[in-house]
Amino acid sequence: MRDLPIGKAFTLIERGPVVLVATHDGAHDNIMTISWTMVLDFAGTFALCTGPWNHSYAALTATRECVLAIPTIDLLDKVVGIGTCSGADTDKFDTFRLTRAKARHVRPPLVRECLANLECRVRDVVRAHNIVVLETLSAHIDPARRERRLIHAIGDGTFVVDGRRFDRRDMMRSKLPPGV
Amino acid sequence: MRDLPIGKAFTLIERGPVVLVATHDGAHDNIMTISWTMVLDFAGTFALCTGPWNHSYAALTATRECVLAIPTIDLLDKVVGIGTCSGADTDKFDTFRLTRAKARHVRPPLVRECLANLECRVRDVVRAHNIVVLETLSAHIDPARRERRLIHAIGDGTFVVDGRRFDRRDMMRSKLPPGV
Repeated sequence: MRDLPIGKAFTLIERGPVVLVATHDGAHDNIMTISWTMVLDFAGTFALCTGPWNHSYAALTATRECVLAIPTIDLLDKVVGIGTCSGADTDKFDTFRLTRAKARHVRPPLVRECLANLECRVRDVVRAHNIVVLETLSAHIDPARRERRLIHAIGDGTFVVDGRRFDRRDMMRSKLPPGV
Repeated sequence: MRDLPIGKAFTLIERGPVVLVATHDGAHDNIMTISWTMVLDFAGTFALCTGPWNHSYAALTATRECVLAIPTIDLLDKVVGIGTCSGADTDKFDTFRLTRAKARHVRPPLVRECLANLECRVRDVVRAHNIVVLETLSAHIDPARRERRLIHAIGDGTFVVDGRRFDRRDMMRSKLPPGV
Protein backbone atom coordinates (compact mmCIF):
# COMPACT_ATOMS: atom_id res chain seq x y z
CA MET A 1 0.00 0.00 0.00
CA ARG A 2 1.13 3.51 -0.76
CA ASP A 3 0.98 6.42 1.68
CA LEU A 4 -1.89 8.76 1.05
CA PRO A 5 -1.52 12.36 2.29
CA ILE A 6 -3.80 12.77 5.33
CA GLY A 7 -5.20 15.87 3.65
CA LYS A 8 -6.72 13.60 1.01
CA ALA A 9 -8.26 11.09 3.42
CA PHE A 10 -11.57 12.99 3.48
CA THR A 11 -12.10 12.25 -0.21
CA LEU A 12 -12.66 8.61 0.77
CA ILE A 13 -15.23 9.39 3.45
CA GLU A 14 -17.05 12.41 2.08
CA ARG A 15 -19.37 10.62 -0.31
CA GLY A 16 -22.71 10.92 1.47
CA PRO A 17 -25.40 12.50 -0.65
CA VAL A 18 -25.03 16.22 -1.19
CA VAL A 19 -27.95 18.06 0.44
CA LEU A 20 -29.31 21.58 0.31
CA VAL A 21 -30.10 23.24 3.64
CA ALA A 22 -32.80 25.93 3.50
CA THR A 23 -33.07 28.45 6.34
CA HIS A 24 -35.01 31.63 7.08
CA ASP A 25 -33.42 34.41 9.14
CA GLY A 26 -36.63 36.33 9.89
CA ALA A 27 -36.42 38.39 6.71
CA HIS A 28 -35.08 36.17 3.93
CA ASP A 29 -34.90 32.57 2.84
CA ASN A 30 -31.44 31.24 2.16
CA ILE A 31 -30.01 27.92 1.04
CA MET A 32 -26.60 26.29 1.23
CA THR A 33 -24.98 23.14 -0.12
CA ILE A 34 -23.66 20.68 2.47
CA SER A 35 -21.95 17.39 1.74
CA TRP A 36 -20.82 16.52 5.28
CA THR A 37 -23.78 14.76 6.87
CA MET A 38 -24.35 11.63 8.99
CA VAL A 39 -27.27 9.50 10.10
CA LEU A 40 -27.60 9.17 13.91
CA ASP A 41 -30.55 6.77 14.20
CA PHE A 42 -33.33 5.17 12.17
CA ALA A 43 -35.86 7.77 13.34
CA GLY A 44 -34.77 10.79 11.32
CA THR A 45 -31.97 12.17 13.51
CA PHE A 46 -29.07 13.54 11.48
CA ALA A 47 -25.81 15.40 11.97
CA LEU A 48 -24.42 18.14 9.74
CA CYS A 49 -20.93 19.57 9.88
CA THR A 50 -21.20 23.35 9.55
CA GLY A 51 -20.01 26.43 11.41
CA PRO A 52 -19.80 30.21 11.48
CA TRP A 53 -17.92 30.21 8.13
CA ASN A 54 -21.25 29.45 6.46
CA HIS A 55 -23.62 32.44 6.19
CA SER A 56 -26.62 30.17 6.89
CA TYR A 57 -25.16 29.07 10.22
CA ALA A 58 -26.41 32.16 12.08
CA ALA A 59 -30.02 31.60 10.93
CA LEU A 60 -29.78 27.85 11.51
CA THR A 61 -28.62 28.19 15.11
CA ALA A 62 -30.81 31.20 15.96
CA THR A 63 -34.10 29.85 14.58
CA ARG A 64 -33.17 26.20 15.24
CA GLU A 65 -34.95 24.98 12.13
CA CYS A 66 -34.21 24.16 8.51
CA VAL A 67 -35.28 22.10 5.53
CA LEU A 68 -32.91 19.45 4.14
CA ALA A 69 -33.67 19.18 0.44
CA ILE A 70 -32.22 16.22 -1.46
CA PRO A 71 -31.16 17.04 -5.03
CA THR A 72 -30.52 14.60 -7.86
CA ILE A 73 -27.86 14.57 -10.57
CA ASP A 74 -29.87 16.71 -13.01
CA LEU A 75 -29.47 19.57 -10.48
CA LEU A 76 -25.66 19.27 -10.19
CA ASP A 77 -24.80 22.69 -11.59
CA LYS A 78 -27.38 24.44 -9.39
CA VAL A 79 -26.03 22.53 -6.38
CA VAL A 80 -22.44 23.59 -7.10
CA GLY A 81 -23.59 27.15 -7.85
CA ILE A 82 -25.47 27.36 -4.54
CA GLY A 83 -22.36 26.06 -2.77
CA THR A 84 -19.98 28.60 -4.29
CA CYS A 85 -21.77 31.88 -3.58
CA SER A 86 -23.01 33.41 -0.32
CA GLY A 87 -26.44 34.36 0.97
CA ALA A 88 -24.69 37.44 2.39
CA ASP A 89 -24.89 39.09 -1.04
CA THR A 90 -27.03 36.75 -3.20
CA ASP A 91 -30.69 35.80 -3.19
CA LYS A 92 -30.05 32.18 -4.04
CA PHE A 93 -33.69 31.14 -4.47
CA ASP A 94 -33.95 33.85 -7.11
CA THR A 95 -30.54 33.35 -8.75
CA PHE A 96 -30.97 29.60 -9.10
CA ARG A 97 -34.69 29.77 -9.87
CA LEU A 98 -35.74 27.43 -7.08
CA THR A 99 -39.46 26.97 -6.49
CA ARG A 100 -40.59 27.28 -2.87
CA ALA A 101 -43.34 25.18 -1.31
CA LYS A 102 -44.71 25.83 2.16
CA ALA A 103 -43.42 23.54 4.87
CA ARG A 104 -45.76 22.19 7.52
CA HIS A 105 -43.71 22.63 10.70
CA VAL A 106 -40.94 25.09 9.91
CA ARG A 107 -40.58 28.53 8.35
CA PRO A 108 -37.93 27.77 5.68
CA PRO A 109 -39.46 26.57 2.42
CA LEU A 110 -39.38 23.18 0.77
CA VAL A 111 -37.65 23.09 -2.62
CA ARG A 112 -39.93 21.69 -5.29
CA GLU A 113 -37.15 20.78 -7.73
CA CYS A 114 -35.65 18.30 -5.24
CA LEU A 115 -36.45 14.60 -4.91
CA ALA A 116 -37.25 14.91 -1.22
CA ASN A 117 -37.49 17.48 1.56
CA LEU A 118 -37.04 16.91 5.28
CA GLU A 119 -38.42 19.50 7.71
CA CYS A 120 -35.99 19.59 10.62
CA ARG A 121 -35.53 21.09 14.07
CA VAL A 122 -32.09 21.66 15.57
CA ARG A 123 -31.82 19.38 18.59
CA ASP A 124 -28.30 20.31 19.60
CA VAL A 125 -25.20 22.17 18.46
CA VAL A 126 -21.91 20.47 19.41
CA ARG A 127 -19.71 23.54 18.96
CA ALA A 128 -16.45 21.75 19.85
CA HIS A 129 -16.73 19.71 16.66
CA ASN A 130 -18.91 21.94 14.42
CA ILE A 131 -21.72 19.38 14.53
CA VAL A 132 -25.40 20.34 14.33
CA VAL A 133 -27.83 17.59 15.34
CA LEU A 134 -31.20 17.67 13.56
CA GLU A 135 -34.44 15.81 14.12
CA THR A 136 -36.90 15.36 11.27
CA LEU A 137 -40.43 16.64 11.90
CA SER A 138 -41.86 15.60 8.56
CA ALA A 139 -40.54 14.25 5.30
CA HIS A 140 -41.81 14.62 1.75
CA ILE A 141 -40.87 12.86 -1.46
CA ASP A 142 -41.80 13.54 -5.08
CA PRO A 143 -43.20 10.24 -6.36
CA ALA A 144 -43.46 11.54 -9.94
CA ARG A 145 -39.76 12.27 -10.31
CA ARG A 146 -37.98 9.99 -12.78
CA GLU A 147 -34.41 11.06 -12.04
CA ARG A 148 -33.67 9.71 -8.57
CA ARG A 149 -29.89 9.28 -8.62
CA LEU A 150 -28.22 11.19 -5.78
CA ILE A 151 -25.04 13.23 -5.98
CA HIS A 152 -21.96 12.23 -3.98
CA ALA A 153 -19.19 14.78 -3.54
CA ILE A 154 -15.67 13.38 -3.53
CA GLY A 155 -14.41 16.62 -2.04
CA ASP A 156 -11.90 17.43 -4.77
CA GLY A 157 -14.39 19.15 -7.07
CA THR A 158 -15.60 15.92 -8.64
CA PHE A 159 -18.84 14.09 -7.95
CA VAL A 160 -20.13 10.58 -8.51
CA VAL A 161 -23.70 9.71 -9.21
CA ASP A 162 -25.46 6.57 -7.99
CA GLY A 163 -24.64 3.52 -10.08
CA ARG A 164 -26.03 0.01 -10.04
CA ARG A 165 -28.12 -1.15 -7.08
CA PHE A 166 -27.41 -4.39 -5.19
CA ASP A 167 -30.05 -6.09 -3.04
CA ARG A 168 -28.82 -7.76 0.17
CA ARG A 169 -32.06 -7.46 2.14
CA ASP A 170 -32.13 -11.16 2.97
CA MET A 171 -28.59 -11.15 4.35
CA MET A 172 -29.33 -7.93 6.28
CA ARG A 173 -32.70 -8.92 7.73
CA SER A 174 -31.49 -9.17 11.34
CA LYS A 175 -30.16 -5.58 11.19
CA LEU A 176 -33.05 -3.78 9.50
CA PRO A 177 -35.63 -1.75 11.40
CA PRO A 178 -39.22 -2.83 10.74
CA GLY A 179 -41.04 -1.14 7.87
CA VAL A 180 -37.99 0.07 5.95
CA MET B 1 -44.99 15.95 -2.92
CA ARG B 2 -46.00 12.89 -1.00
CA ASP B 3 -45.43 12.36 2.71
CA LEU B 4 -42.55 10.05 3.44
CA PRO B 5 -42.59 8.22 6.79
CA ILE B 6 -39.95 9.82 9.04
CA GLY B 7 -38.63 6.32 9.69
CA LYS B 8 -37.54 6.17 6.05
CA ALA B 9 -35.85 9.58 5.96
CA PHE B 10 -32.48 8.06 6.86
CA THR B 11 -32.43 6.13 3.60
CA LEU B 12 -31.92 9.45 1.82
CA ILE B 13 -29.00 10.55 3.98
CA GLU B 14 -27.23 7.30 4.76
CA ARG B 15 -25.30 6.93 1.54
CA GLY B 16 -21.76 7.72 2.63
CA PRO B 17 -19.27 5.02 1.79
CA VAL B 18 -19.52 1.91 3.92
CA VAL B 19 -16.35 1.49 5.99
CA LEU B 20 -14.83 -1.29 8.06
CA VAL B 21 -13.57 -0.34 11.52
CA ALA B 22 -10.78 -2.56 12.89
CA THR B 23 -10.04 -2.54 16.61
CA HIS B 24 -7.86 -4.50 19.03
CA ASP B 25 -9.03 -5.13 22.60
CA GLY B 26 -5.67 -6.20 24.04
CA ALA B 27 -6.18 -9.84 23.12
CA HIS B 28 -7.96 -9.99 19.74
CA ASP B 29 -8.44 -8.03 16.57
CA ASN B 30 -12.04 -7.33 15.61
CA ILE B 31 -13.75 -5.54 12.75
CA MET B 32 -17.19 -4.05 12.21
CA THR B 33 -19.10 -2.53 9.32
CA ILE B 34 -20.21 1.10 9.73
CA SER B 35 -22.17 3.15 7.23
CA TRP B 36 -22.88 6.21 9.39
CA THR B 37 -19.84 8.44 9.02
CA MET B 38 -19.16 12.13 8.42
CA VAL B 39 -16.24 14.32 7.45
CA LEU B 40 -15.44 17.10 9.98
CA ASP B 41 -12.60 18.93 8.24
CA PHE B 42 -10.16 18.63 5.34
CA ALA B 43 -7.38 17.36 7.64
CA GLY B 44 -8.59 13.82 8.30
CA THR B 45 -11.02 14.39 11.17
CA PHE B 46 -14.10 12.15 10.95
CA ALA B 47 -17.17 11.25 12.97
CA LEU B 48 -18.70 7.78 13.31
CA CYS B 49 -22.07 6.98 14.80
CA THR B 50 -21.65 3.94 17.05
CA GLY B 51 -22.46 2.95 20.60
CA PRO B 52 -22.48 0.18 23.19
CA TRP B 53 -24.75 -1.95 20.99
CA ASN B 54 -21.69 -2.66 18.82
CA HIS B 55 -19.23 -5.16 20.34
CA SER B 56 -16.27 -3.15 18.96
CA TYR B 57 -17.37 -0.04 20.86
CA ALA B 58 -15.74 -1.18 24.13
CA ALA B 59 -12.34 -1.69 22.46
CA LEU B 60 -12.68 1.51 20.42
CA THR B 61 -13.38 3.71 23.44
CA ALA B 62 -10.95 1.91 25.81
CA THR B 63 -7.94 1.87 23.47
CA ARG B 64 -8.97 5.06 21.64
CA GLU B 65 -7.63 3.79 18.33
CA CYS B 66 -8.85 2.03 15.21
CA VAL B 67 -8.26 1.52 11.51
CA LEU B 68 -10.89 2.67 9.02
CA ALA B 69 -10.62 0.38 6.02
CA ILE B 70 -12.44 1.39 2.83
CA PRO B 71 -13.87 -1.55 0.88
CA THR B 72 -14.97 -1.58 -2.75
CA ILE B 73 -17.93 -3.24 -4.44
CA ASP B 74 -16.15 -6.57 -5.05
CA LEU B 75 -16.10 -6.99 -1.24
CA LEU B 76 -19.85 -6.39 -0.75
CA ASP B 77 -20.71 -9.83 0.63
CA LYS B 78 -17.79 -9.79 3.08
CA VAL B 79 -18.86 -6.29 4.19
CA VAL B 80 -22.46 -7.40 4.81
CA GLY B 81 -21.24 -10.59 6.49
CA ILE B 82 -18.95 -8.63 8.83
CA GLY B 83 -21.88 -6.34 9.66
CA THR B 84 -24.30 -9.12 10.52
CA CYS B 85 -22.29 -11.18 13.02
CA SER B 86 -20.59 -10.20 16.27
CA GLY B 87 -17.00 -10.19 17.42
CA ALA B 88 -18.40 -11.47 20.73
CA ASP B 89 -18.55 -15.00 19.28
CA THR B 90 -16.81 -14.80 15.89
CA ASP B 91 -13.22 -14.26 14.81
CA LYS B 92 -14.13 -12.09 11.84
CA PHE B 93 -10.61 -11.78 10.39
CA ASP B 94 -10.54 -15.57 10.23
CA THR B 95 -14.15 -16.13 9.11
CA PHE B 96 -13.97 -13.59 6.28
CA ARG B 97 -10.35 -14.42 5.39
CA LEU B 98 -9.08 -10.86 5.74
CA THR B 99 -5.33 -10.30 5.40
CA ARG B 100 -3.77 -8.17 8.12
CA ALA B 101 -0.96 -5.69 7.54
CA LYS B 102 0.87 -3.93 10.36
CA ALA B 103 -0.20 -0.35 10.99
CA ARG B 104 2.40 2.30 11.75
CA HIS B 105 0.77 4.20 14.62
CA VAL B 106 -1.96 1.97 16.04
CA ARG B 107 -2.34 -1.60 17.23
CA PRO B 108 -5.34 -2.71 15.07
CA PRO B 109 -4.27 -4.06 11.68
CA LEU B 110 -4.73 -2.62 8.22
CA VAL B 111 -6.87 -4.75 5.88
CA ARG B 112 -4.97 -5.59 2.70
CA GLU B 113 -8.09 -6.41 0.65
CA CYS B 114 -9.40 -2.84 1.00
CA LEU B 115 -8.73 0.09 -1.31
CA ALA B 116 -7.49 2.29 1.51
CA ASN B 117 -6.78 2.21 5.24
CA LEU B 118 -6.77 5.14 7.66
CA GLU B 119 -4.99 4.77 11.01
CA CYS B 120 -7.06 6.76 13.49
CA ARG B 121 -6.98 7.95 17.08
CA VAL B 122 -10.20 8.71 18.99
CA ARG B 123 -10.20 12.43 19.72
CA ASP B 124 -13.53 12.57 21.52
CA VAL B 125 -16.66 10.57 22.31
CA VAL B 126 -19.87 12.62 22.28
CA ARG B 127 -21.97 10.16 24.26
CA ALA B 128 -25.19 12.22 24.12
CA HIS B 129 -25.39 11.61 20.37
CA ASN B 130 -23.40 8.37 19.96
CA ILE B 131 -20.72 10.19 17.99
CA VAL B 132 -17.06 9.17 18.03
CA VAL B 133 -14.64 11.78 16.64
CA LEU B 134 -11.53 10.37 14.96
CA GLU B 135 -8.33 11.98 13.75
CA THR B 136 -6.26 10.30 11.05
CA LEU B 137 -2.64 9.60 11.93
CA SER B 138 -1.67 8.07 8.60
CA ALA B 139 -3.44 6.96 5.46
CA HIS B 140 -2.59 4.27 2.93
CA ILE B 141 -4.01 3.48 -0.49
CA ASP B 142 -3.49 0.53 -2.82
CA PRO B 143 -2.44 2.06 -6.13
CA ALA B 144 -2.54 -1.32 -7.93
CA ARG B 145 -6.23 -1.92 -7.26
CA ARG B 146 -8.38 -1.81 -10.38
CA GLU B 147 -11.80 -1.94 -8.67
CA ARG B 148 -12.16 1.43 -6.93
CA ARG B 149 -15.94 1.88 -6.78
CA LEU B 150 -17.15 2.45 -3.19
CA ILE B 151 -20.24 0.94 -1.59
CA HIS B 152 -23.10 3.17 -0.42
CA ALA B 153 -25.67 1.68 1.96
CA ILE B 154 -29.22 2.90 1.46
CA GLY B 155 -30.14 1.54 4.87
CA ASP B 156 -32.91 -0.78 3.70
CA GLY B 157 -30.66 -3.72 2.86
CA THR B 158 -29.80 -2.41 -0.60
CA PHE B 159 -26.59 -0.75 -1.70
CA VAL B 160 -25.57 1.43 -4.62
CA VAL B 161 -22.15 1.47 -6.14
CA ASP B 162 -20.42 4.53 -7.57
CA GLY B 163 -21.63 5.43 -11.04
CA ARG B 164 -20.37 8.00 -13.51
CA ARG B 165 -18.01 10.74 -12.36
CA PHE B 166 -18.62 14.44 -13.04
CA ASP B 167 -15.82 17.01 -12.92
CA ARG B 168 -16.72 20.44 -11.51
CA ARG B 169 -13.24 21.39 -10.27
CA ASP B 170 -13.24 24.68 -12.14
CA MET B 171 -16.59 25.78 -10.67
CA MET B 172 -15.48 24.63 -7.20
CA ARG B 173 -11.99 26.15 -7.22
CA SER B 174 -12.79 28.82 -4.58
CA LYS B 175 -13.93 26.11 -2.13
CA LEU B 176 -11.19 23.52 -2.55
CA PRO B 177 -8.31 23.16 -0.11
CA PRO B 178 -4.88 23.34 -1.77
CA GLY B 179 -3.34 20.09 -2.95
CA VAL B 180 -6.55 18.04 -3.19
